[in-house]
Amino acid sequence: MDAKSVEEFQEQIGIKFHEPSRLWNAFIHSSYANERRMSKDKNNERLEFLGDAVLELVTSNYLYRTYQKESEGKLSKIRASLVCEPTLAGCARDINLGKYVLLSKGEDMTGGRSRDSILSDAFEAVIGAIYLDQGIETATKFIETYLFKDVENKVLFFDAKTNLQEIVQGEGKGRLKYVLVGEEGPDHAKIFTVEARLGENVIGTGSGHSKKSAEQHAAFEAIKRHKK
Amino acid sequence: MDAKSVEEFQEQIGIKFHEPSRLWNAFIHSSYANERRMSKDKNNERLEFLGDAVLELVTSNYLYRTYQKESEGKLSKIRASLVCEPTLAGCARDINLGKYVLLSKGEDMTGGRSRDSILSDAFEAVIGAIYLDQGIETATKFIETYLFKDVENKVLFFDAKTNLQEIVQGEGKGRLKYVLVGEEGPDHAKIFTVEARLGENVIGTGSGHSKKSAEQHAAFEAIKRHKK
Repeated sequence: MDAKSVEEFQEQIGIKFHEPSRLWNAFIHSSYANERRMSKDKNNERLEFLGDAVLELVTSNYLYRTYQKESEGKLSKIRASLVCEPTLAGCARDINLGKYVLLSKGEDMTGGRSRDSILSDAFEAVIGAIYLDQGIETATKFIETYLFKDVENKVLFFDAKTNLQEIVQGEGKGRLKYVLVGEEGPDHAKIFTVEARLGENVIGTGSGHSKKSAEQHAAFEAIKRHKK
Repeated sequence: MDAKSVEEFQEQIGIKFHEPSRLWNAFIHSSYANERRMSKDKNNERLEFLGDAVLELVTSNYLYRTYQKESEGKLSKIRASLVCEPTLAGCARDINLGKYVLLSKGEDMTGGRSRDSILSDAFEAVIGAIYLDQGIETATKFIETYLFKDVENKVLFFDAKTNLQEIVQGEGKGRLKYVLVGEEGPDHAKIFTVEARLGENVIGTGSGHSKKSAEQHAAFEAIKRHKK
């Protein structure tokens, strides 16, 4: 165990572990464990298994209480927008988790530290470690701090195109459409730019690595402008 | 709310609710709510959403601690054998939940009270209601009492054919096979009987409504005999 990195990470998240080795365990990606011929129960997947369940309960409980008049179907949809790989990877980036994960040389050289799947899994493993070491209350606070901040925007963004459609529907200002207005960069790293238009008016602009992602950003932009 | 049935059910599970209406809510199947034109948030699906997450955490935590040397893959497999419709429906039957669920006339007349899907969902809703009213500790005790009793057998049964294959593999006593030895009853309610044989020896016999189910019972029978 690298005591210094564990110490540093604890300071960063403001939690002092009774058994710091649990946190270390959360850093161990399967590729690192394989490379060092560690047994299968030593990588962070067991903690991820536990953390995933903690995350599910804390999120469900939060949504159950926050959205008292919504059906189960709507709650499930909102939960899916919060507990999903890109959102969890974003949380992992907020606590700089990429710096601490332990990867095989191969994974490290091919950009594993910034890969959504690795970051998202490690974030769940950290939640599992906190739950195991500190209990449900500290784990809940951690999740509230990093996942539930800005929750309204995360929910709106997840299903932005549907949300925007619902908003403009009743207004009678014309048909909503998405128009591709730019493509830049080389083929393997192209950036698309899309405008959301209502009739002739541009109501939002967004960019992304796919047309779909650019449309989502454009819709989200339009929603935010509409709310002002 | 039918106070008497809520009272009776509370006595049966040995939990006194602060707000008994939460328990009543857990009984309300969507068909009953639809028939009475209740709004969508009034059926038991919101509580099922919550209870499902409670069940997931309590089970994951239990397995994490009980099977300390198993990989995440094995833990997920065991969890799937516990948190599955037939097992949860069995728990619901143990607490006589079919008597209390509120169904539309149509669902009631077509045997809804003994349907696995309805019972399993209502069992999760009851867990959600207990969690909401009493907190995680009481919910955990409830799950331990009804779901984790006889856990070893539930796990063995779930994957009985694979488990039996693994047991006999090293013994060199011949090839394992399943032989259909009986079919009884009318077409829509046929009962199949299957023998598990190792070489020429019958090592287990089982019956079921499908060949697959009969084989599973035969394998489970053989495992139990083998362990004695």
